[in-house]
Amino acid sequence: MRPDLQALVGQGVEAIDTPALVVDLDAMERNLHRMAEFSREHRVKLRPHAKMHKCAALARLQVEAGAVGLCVQKTAEAERLAERGVTDLFISNQVIAPAKLARVAALARRLHAAGGQLAIAVDSALGVERLAQAMTAAGPATQLDVFVELDVGQHRCGVAPGPAAVALVREVLRHPALRYAGLQAYQGSAQHQRSAAQRRATIEEVAAQVARTCTLLRADGIEPGLVTGAGTGTFALEAASGVFGELQAGSYLFMDADYALNRPDPAQPAFEHALYVKTQIISRSDDHAVCDAGHKSYAVDSGLPLVHGSDLQITGASDEAGVLRGPALPARGDILWLIPGHCDPTVNLHDAMVGVRGGLARGRVERILAVDARGALT
Amino acid sequence: MRPDLQALVGQGVEAIDTPALVVDLDAMERNLHRMAEFSREHRVKLRPHAKMHKCAALARLQVEAGAVGLCVQKTAEAERLAERGVTDLFISNQVIAPAKLARVAALARRLHAAGGQLAIAVDSALGVERLAQAMTAAGPATQLDVFVELDVGQHRCGVAPGPAAVALVREVLRHPALRYAGLQAYQGSAQHQRSAAQRRATIEEVAAQVARTCTLLRADGIEPGLVTGAGTGTFALEAASGVFGELQAGSYLFMDADYALNRPDPAQPAFEHALYVKTQIISRSDDHAVCDAGHKSYAVDSGLPLVHGSDLQITGASDEAGVLRGPALPARGDILWLIPGHCDPTVNLHDAMVGVRGGLARGRVERILAVDARGALT
Repeated sequence: MRPDLQALVGQGVEAIDTPALVVDLDAMERNLHRMAEFSREHRVKLRPHAKMHKCAALARLQVEAGAVGLCVQKTAEAERLAERGVTDLFISNQVIAPAKLARVAALARRLHAAGGQLAIAVDSALGVERLAQAMTAAGPATQLDVFVELDVGQHRCGVAPGPAAVALVREVLRHPALRYAGLQAYQGSAQHQRSAAQRRATIEEVAAQVARTCTLLRADGIEPGLVTGAGTGTFALEAASGVFGELQAGSYLFMDADYALNRPDPAQPAFEHALYVKTQIISRSDDHAVCDAGHKSYAVDSGLPLVHGSDLQITGASDEAGVLRGPALPARGDILWLIPGHCDPTVNLHDAMVGVRGGLARGRVERILAVDARGALT
Repeated sequence: MRPDLQALVGQGVEAIDTPALVVDLDAMERNLHRMAEFSREHRVKLRPHAKMHKCAALARLQVEAGAVGLCVQKTAEAERLAERGVTDLFISNQVIAPAKLARVAALARRLHAAGGQLAIAVDSALGVERLAQAMTAAGPATQLDVFVELDVGQHRCGVAPGPAAVALVREVLRHPALRYAGLQAYQGSAQHQRSAAQRRATIEEVAAQVARTCTLLRADGIEPGLVTGAGTGTFALEAASGVFGELQAGSYLFMDADYALNRPDPAQPAFEHALYVKTQIISRSDDHAVCDAGHKSYAVDSGLPLVHGSDLQITGASDEAGVLRGPALPARGDILWLIPGHCDPTVNLHDAMVGVRGGLARGRVERILAVDARGALT
């Protein structure tokens, strides 16, 4: 046992050492089932994004609840989850290095042999060419689903919708080693537009671009296949569009302070905060208190964390400390629960999450969830 | 071997998989020796902060070059480095949980038995009381140096300089289980003041507050002991103050984009960038390119990374991608070297650093440096 392990199964919440990343399992499971139910009711597949939790145990939980498989963003994430029994994976990102594509092909072979399936996205002729080479080198027993990624307004990866996308689909179809599976269309910037009306307008435009591409494909005699995309901020809109067949939301399981700022859309089920950083006050002056969690315990790319159930504010953070100001300053030794600004990169800071049953006040540690793909960057 | 390990010793730089955290060993060693020479010339002790690199091999290198030991900010960091042979450690931070203080006492005992030494900071009577209890429980063969931490303007941890500090020193002296060693006085906000004149004015004020506290202590018949503090932005000023006997700079070994914005002070030796994120272009449109390193590969608390030797700018980052804009956009497969905004939390994202000898263009991998205390939060 590592001496700095924060908790043991069976201990009370009060025994969890700080700082620690804590999952409220009751809230998380309500989120899990709410999303599974939504996808069943709306007859869309659910393929949650594992880049958020990076945890094979949670991935399996999502599959048991009805998910068809998981998304990942990196080859190494796929490898780590596959090693731990997750057999249906989609690398929803671009891979261009030949050495990495050889790993993709090897993983596709292993998953196929295990009765599973690997998929990947492409957005360029070069990517298709190199992927086909890697798959051909891996031999005929290897199967890989290929999705053509569209840039539907996020301006990150992706080919332009319309004729350019159709040309790239044709490139994929040219290669017998690749199996064209559909279109990847994720609009990341829409996820945090604050008003429901903005999000609706953005996803309407996304759906129109995808539909136009599908029409062009059909006019060329090509079946467009599955359209996959969407996140926790907008998935009900993609589901209602009539264009998307699969949802990739990930954050719904834990939520975070940034998603909490979205004004709700009645079409979407609401999710609860399930991820917290437990922290302790280590210093205190007349005008501020200091907790033992800084930006090595929570990511700050989407702002500083909130203090759960309190008017206190974290007004500044350094690597290992957070400075708190507000009414009724806590005393040395007091415990606070922080709600991270952004769940994905916060989870990636921790080796493990402490799963608690029965609430933050009087619950018990039920399980330790390893962040299996933590630091899986390549 | 992990399939996602980025490099093997002996490989050329071009074979390092991306993204990877790469250390230019030649530049790092020049920084190492420049700082060691400075502390010898100015007759101050050097105790670099290991919260930056979290690496036992680099800690040992610093000690071989003349450092008296290392600082850490967390008990778990001290434990991990001690397990790997670093025997003189100072936890320059507050620890208040009794269970953690028991670990501190146990570590103090182990280090003392190994011919080494542990030290810790305190800033409250409660902290002193609990520390003394833990030390008494650990038995008489345990030795621990205790530094009283002053708030010299950063407004994080620390007791006010002057009479309050003197009273706390008296508290430490009351306990036979504790050995009063001196004052901890770190002014973190001064490190990144951009003008040398600002930094000089700030550290002048710091030194005056510390000197006043020392005078009060002597008037009470107490030898003030060692004054320890300073960082990479100001250490020459603390060294010249006549008050500080030990410097805690850490970032000088690697440097980062934030420190590079400081306008130089002729009193300080200059350091070179030695830490890079190697990244590859995975997507490209007419107006931007996308690299495979996002804020899971570099911390963004001090801004986005710079692109080494290029006019390109990272204009946005998501978890696993950076978006680049500028003249002469790179092509898919091209390699870029990023200079992180802030070295400490960037290193903490990685399991290992790839040490390169002979430069980024044609060098070879000489060693893999494990980030031993990565995620050591408690």
